[in-house]
Amino acid sequence: MSKILWINPVGTDAYDEVMQKGFESIKRPDTIVDVVSLDKGPEHLEYRYYEALVLPEILHKVKAAERAGYDATIIGCFYDLGLQESREMVKDMVVTAPGEACSHLAATMGEQFSVIVTRSKCISQMKSTLSGYGMKDKLASFKSLGLAVDELHDSEEVTFERMVALSKEAIQQDGAELMVLGCTIQFGYYEKLQKAIGVPVIDAVIAPFKQAELIAELKNQFGWTHSKVCAYEEPPISEIKRWDLEEQYELKGLW
Amino acid sequence: MSKILWINPVGTDAYDEVMQKGFESIKRPDTIVDVVSLDKGPEHLEYRYYEALVLPEILHKVKAAERAGYDATIIGCFYDLGLQESREMVKDMVVTAPGEACSHLAATMGEQFSVIVTRSKCISQMKSTLSGYGMKDKLASFKSLGLAVDELHDSEEVTFERMVALSKEAIQQDGAELMVLGCTIQFGYYEKLQKAIGVPVIDAVIAPFKQAELIAELKNQFGWTHSKVCAYEEPPISEIKRWDLEEQYELKGLW
Amino acid sequence: MSKILWINPVGTDAYDEVMQKGFESIKRPDTIVDVVSLDKGPEHLEYRYYEALVLPEILHKVKAAERAGYDATIIGCFYDLGLQESREMVKDMVVTAPGEACSHLAATMGEQFSVIVTRSKCISQMKSTLSGYGMKDKLASFKSLGLAVDELHDSEEVTFERMVALSKEAIQQDGAELMVLGCTIQFGYYEKLQKAIGVPVIDAVIAPFKQAELIAELKNQFGWTHSKVCAYEEPPISEIKRWDLEEQYELKGLW
Amino acid sequence: MSKILWINPVGTDAYDEVMQKGFESIKRPDTIVDVVSLDKGPEHLEYRYYEALVLPEILHKVKAAERAGYDATIIGCFYDLGLQESREMVKDMVVTAPGEACSHLAATMGEQFSVIVTRSKCISQMKSTLSGYGMKDKLASFKSLGLAVDELHDSEEVTFERMVALSKEAIQQDGAELMVLGCTIQFGYYEKLQKAIGVPVIDAVIAPFKQAELIAELKNQFGWTHSKVCAYEEPPISEIKRWDLEEQYELKGLW
Amino acid sequence: MSKILWINPVGTDAYDEVMQKGFESIKRPDTIVDVVSLDKGPEHLEYRYYEALVLPEILHKVKAAERAGYDATIIGCFYDLGLQESREMVKDMVVTAPGEACSHLAATMGEQFSVIVTRSKCISQMKSTLSGYGMKDKLASFKSLGLAVDELHDSEEVTFERMVALSKEAIQQDGAELMVLGCTIQFGYYEKLQKAIGVPVIDAVIAPFKQAELIAELKNQFGWTHSKVCAYEEPPISEIKRWDLEEQYELKGLW
Amino acid sequence: MSKILWINPVGTDAYDEVMQKGFESIKRPDTIVDVVSLDKGPEHLEYRYYEALVLPEILHKVKAAERAGYDATIIGCFYDLGLQESREMVKDMVVTAPGEACSHLAATMGEQFSVIVTRSKCISQMKSTLSGYGMKDKLASFKSLGLAVDELHDSEEVTFERMVALSKEAIQQDGAELMVLGCTIQFGYYEKLQKAIGVPVIDAVIAPFKQAELIAELKNQFGWTHSKVCAYEEPPISEIKRWDLEEQYELKGLW
Repeated sequence: MSKILWINPVGTDAYDEVMQKGFESIKRPDTIVDVVSLDKGPEHLEYRYYEALVLPEILHKVKAAERAGYDATIIGCFYDLGLQESREMVKDMVVTAPGEACSHLAATMGEQFSVIVTRSKCISQMKSTLSGYGMKDKLASFKSLGLAVDELHDSEEVTFERMVALSKEAIQQDGAELMVLGCTIQFGYYEKLQKAIGVPVIDAVIAPFKQAELIAELKNQFGWTHSKVCAYEEPPISEIKRWDLEEQYELKGLW
Repeated sequence: MSKILWINPVGTDAYDEVMQKGFESIKRPDTIVDVVSLDKGPEHLEYRYYEALVLPEILHKVKAAERAGYDATIIGCFYDLGLQESREMVKDMVVTAPGEACSHLAATMGEQFSVIVTRSKCISQMKSTLSGYGMKDKLASFKSLGLAVDELHDSEEVTFERMVALSKEAIQQDGAELMVLGCTIQFGYYEKLQKAIGVPVIDAVIAPFKQAELIAELKNQFGWTHSKVCAYEEPPISEIKRWDLEEQYELKGLW
Repeated sequence: MSKILWINPVGTDAYDEVMQKGFESIKRPDTIVDVVSLDKGPEHLEYRYYEALVLPEILHKVKAAERAGYDATIIGCFYDLGLQESREMVKDMVVTAPGEACSHLAATMGEQFSVIVTRSKCISQMKSTLSGYGMKDKLASFKSLGLAVDELHDSEEVTFERMVALSKEAIQQDGAELMVLGCTIQFGYYEKLQKAIGVPVIDAVIAPFKQAELIAELKNQFGWTHSKVCAYEEPPISEIKRWDLEEQYELKGLW
Repeated sequence: MSKILWINPVGTDAYDEVMQKGFESIKRPDTIVDVVSLDKGPEHLEYRYYEALVLPEILHKVKAAERAGYDATIIGCFYDLGLQESREMVKDMVVTAPGEACSHLAATMGEQFSVIVTRSKCISQMKSTLSGYGMKDKLASFKSLGLAVDELHDSEEVTFERMVALSKEAIQQDGAELMVLGCTIQFGYYEKLQKAIGVPVIDAVIAPFKQAELIAELKNQFGWTHSKVCAYEEPPISEIKRWDLEEQYELKGLW
Repeated sequence: MSKILWINPVGTDAYDEVMQKGFESIKRPDTIVDVVSLDKGPEHLEYRYYEALVLPEILHKVKAAERAGYDATIIGCFYDLGLQESREMVKDMVVTAPGEACSHLAATMGEQFSVIVTRSKCISQMKSTLSGYGMKDKLASFKSLGLAVDELHDSEEVTFERMVALSKEAIQQDGAELMVLGCTIQFGYYEKLQKAIGVPVIDAVIAPFKQAELIAELKNQFGWTHSKVCAYEEPPISEIKRWDLEEQYELKGLW
Repeated sequence: MSKILWINPVGTDAYDEVMQKGFESIKRPDTIVDVVSLDKGPEHLEYRYYEALVLPEILHKVKAAERAGYDATIIGCFYDLGLQESREMVKDMVVTAPGEACSHLAATMGEQFSVIVTRSKCISQMKSTLSGYGMKDKLASFKSLGLAVDELHDSEEVTFERMVALSKEAIQQDGAELMVLGCTIQFGYYEKLQKAIGVPVIDAVIAPFKQAELIAELKNQFGWTHSKVCAYEEPPISEIKRWDLEEQYELKGLW
């Protein structure tokens, strides 16, 4: 049995219900899954500033999730913001995120893959993050929809047609052998798209969720979680208390 | 429900029973697992020649597994020999192997990991294979036990003590944050070792098995399997028939 | 004339006065310099969590600095946290930080350099950041003092002796040709150290300050500032207003 | 005097005679050269499966060549399959192959070169192999003829025209300064092509043959052959005998 | 106060006066600047042969500059020829050059930049030099004007229009976020160009000059100059004297 | 028949005779070989300054060699100075040098090799040059004798013993599988050394000489020489004449 939390790291609960339903329909029988979003903040994370604004609340929600007994938490944005910080902060709850989960999976499914992003602004940041995971030579290309996050479902037909066109370009010109949807809000397209283009299409919501189920199981069964030596060494409670960080940041007994 | 085959790619069934039992004790309830070894061949794969000798039979066993309705096959050697060939040969059965499964998992559990190998002869080949997966900057070091595969369980105490010493060296000098056991015959040590050294130790038998359960599920539920476009395009049956490959290699109706 | 702001990105003003004095003694005659620290937060940033906590306030201080007419702002921590976010948020005020300024300078002063860090926990994050600047092959090694930030001036003799020993090791064994002090709180040592070891030692406070003077001049004289195309495109005010981000995060008319 | 063996690693002798004649016309006066093909197997190696099928016989032919007194053996396929295995198996006979010989030669003849391949399926495997030789930054591009191996001489005019067009593209758009023919069955075109396009064109049959003459001479005169330490350490005869590998694989006294 | 020398490393003084005037208009108040060219030699350095011809005289001029009390010397060609040699030869005068100064500056102003070169012949050499500085992943592309150095000011309208077109291509297709003018003789265009294309354009004359002012100041104030350990260790005077190098190369008391 | 010139790029003929004799004893029967040194200049090239001083004369000797009908010229220093310049200057005479010839050969003889250098000052330059040839991952290490070039034969016993010790270190600790002698003046040691350490030792005089014989043959028989497109495009005679370069540099009808 695993208890899993999906955090929509935005200040709107608009996507929570649809995702909750989605997870219920694909989860293992004995998985318990909850979806939450943030108390406040921007409604998408297309800018680094928005990421910075929501980062502390994400981390505190992750820390609270461990306290609440979750086995795994997923930070639901393809930028994977807060992933390394979370591993530092928690003891042994496992944490994952779409960029990491999708790219490690895609890397085993073809020689090279391409990532469909909302706007070209995303590319340098995602390239840097995915390269840090070792994906530099696995990336055939990034393909930009030219659509903002909140336009992805305005006309699903338009979005889908662009996805098909970009995928064909990626496969025929860039050497991609499969596609990754590089935004959680691109949900709902993968199945139709992989039928249309004839190669696998990794969904940025499903992949990290199933990965979370796996690593929660590995943790519970074999004690495998991220190492707490060196990079993910925890901040000392004594410091946090001495500096009154809980009071300063209104964390009410989190630590 | 997933049906999974583990191939011990050696000409001895010495490890089949212990592995079968091991898998029974760690599998998901609805997983069916079988373990087979080869009909002939060397008893370990420490030399490239031995790998070459067993490669065709591995591939034919993989192809037959797809025919027999398996959802996933694991080629049970850390060299991952035959992994890419298998993906080319099968239609949609998923295939994995210890090197790939362990390294992608380890890459998410720390900034760098080290791999414990039997003998230093292995290192350049494994480094090349893992680098091909994108692990070049994730590898802190390879640490050599100086033991042949068939000596790994001669004195389990000696083996264990060397593992502890090498792990400490890796963590303190090379920057490793966790360890990977780089040989399937290093089974039986991970639990005691991770207790002794205080960081996770990835087992080369368990990790690919659990990864196989995951990717079998992903294939069955979402249609995700390796891409058949470009690198893993299948050889045409017509050629195989025209050249009488089945007769020449005694494959009796495999294709 | 340039107006420059140094932000000590910690919740203590303990270092402000000494740094202000230091800058007064080394600045160009027509430079105006101010030093500020944060309103709250941890007193050092040795953990990623602490960085996350202070990040929003840093960014808002940077944004306010542009409003207040500063030509350049320096985010005074070798982790360079918030550097890219700042470039996204401001219009044309230039921004720099110690990691970037020191490494680009050091890269022109020898074939390879080593960085002295407080504790080995820092290394993977700094290596990743500096590699992102292109420094991967320029880095001979990171050398760890084994001292926390707040211990750096406990016994200046001890700190200095360790710096000398680590520098010699870096030069003789790792191929370093010069040293970089990888923490702003290592101030006060560079001069004595470069005399002792016979190679240049780049100070993490002085280097970014002088770089800030240069790039402020370049901006004022030639219009050169970071590009606002693509990666550093600004978040739209309309969104910030629509989502009430100023109210939510108590930013009182910042945007 | 050197005795050299060229192995056409396919189950057809269709190319043996033309190659034998070719070698006679370009060899050093005191070189003795023989061409053989395999006893069985596919007629080309466009699929990884075909490579796996022929690999053992190639290796046994290489081992037998050493027994028969050859100074050098060339494995005549641009995939260089079996090259590392051969170096492990033989004592001091030198071994080479087209991919290695052509790329090391081409790397000295221009800043970047392009490789003309039969079909795009080849590219990822060749790129990986050549990158392993250090050629990653030397490769301007791979250009695909869109022709199967057995179509290369169907219409030599069509093949040649495509070669010209692809070469011009490589030179004008990809930065190639010379071309490499990436398949031994592209023989017969290099001379006409280099005249047509004005840059050198390396032939995949001639280059490894002349390289073989050189390294045979170096072995005979200076004792230089591949190192037998570590990666190419030989499998122990005792194991081969104990496991009855000769009987199992019908090798009749090879070892 | 800093005394700076700009060397036009060509056998013509055609550019000296315009550059001298340019420097006077942009220098710090207390900077003294001189411009010299060579006594003989080619009038541009588009060929490696020309670079080799002028290299000794450049180095001797640099050495003499140190004798004459200059604080910094700039070798005024984007190939940066003689930069490392100069650092070896001088004691503590700082030396810089356009390629190094422009690329380290540009690397802080955007995720990727493109370089406008005269002819495509330049590209491989510049790519190699800039990659040596760590810029490999910072380079979006090189864009070639297809104009020889001495044609750059033939029709300034033509040159400018090509610059605009190439810059747009670089930004829209190659991912560049700013531009660098990759030749000192492209002076006079940066201001108009950055207005036309809306991103910063780094000038190959101004950037190294301002960098020289900075590093001269750092040397004078903090003792920071290139390391003299290892790579830039000076040739021993005793050898130079013993071999009569001054007589042989007509250096009249330089050493 | 091939006519080959070896240039000792130093201002002493001390090594000419011993090398001439050496080449006579190892050359192909129909090879004609000449050895020359420079008219003036330093007696070794341990400093970049010395390299710069002799570069023009080397290039003019190479150009003259083509005029004189040589098929190949070898620039006899492991720094490979002037190699790219020479390829630009000549029409079709082939040119090689020790660093390039030894490293491409060594790369085919083991997974990794180490280079024995005179002093550690050499390392960064050689590493950069060899990395440019694609050897970055092939280099196990550089090992420094701590002997100047002119001390290499002072006590041959001392030199030899250091070579043995460094080689053992390289093999046992650094992962080297063979050794390269990284200086032409290390001649006379390879045979004894490879006997002592049990792995091949590539000699920096023999390897480029035999490579020169090969590429001369390839040029004469197949028209293969370095590409003259792009990087090695020749300087136009018209410019050389217009600028009076022959008069200025006393080249008396060379062009």
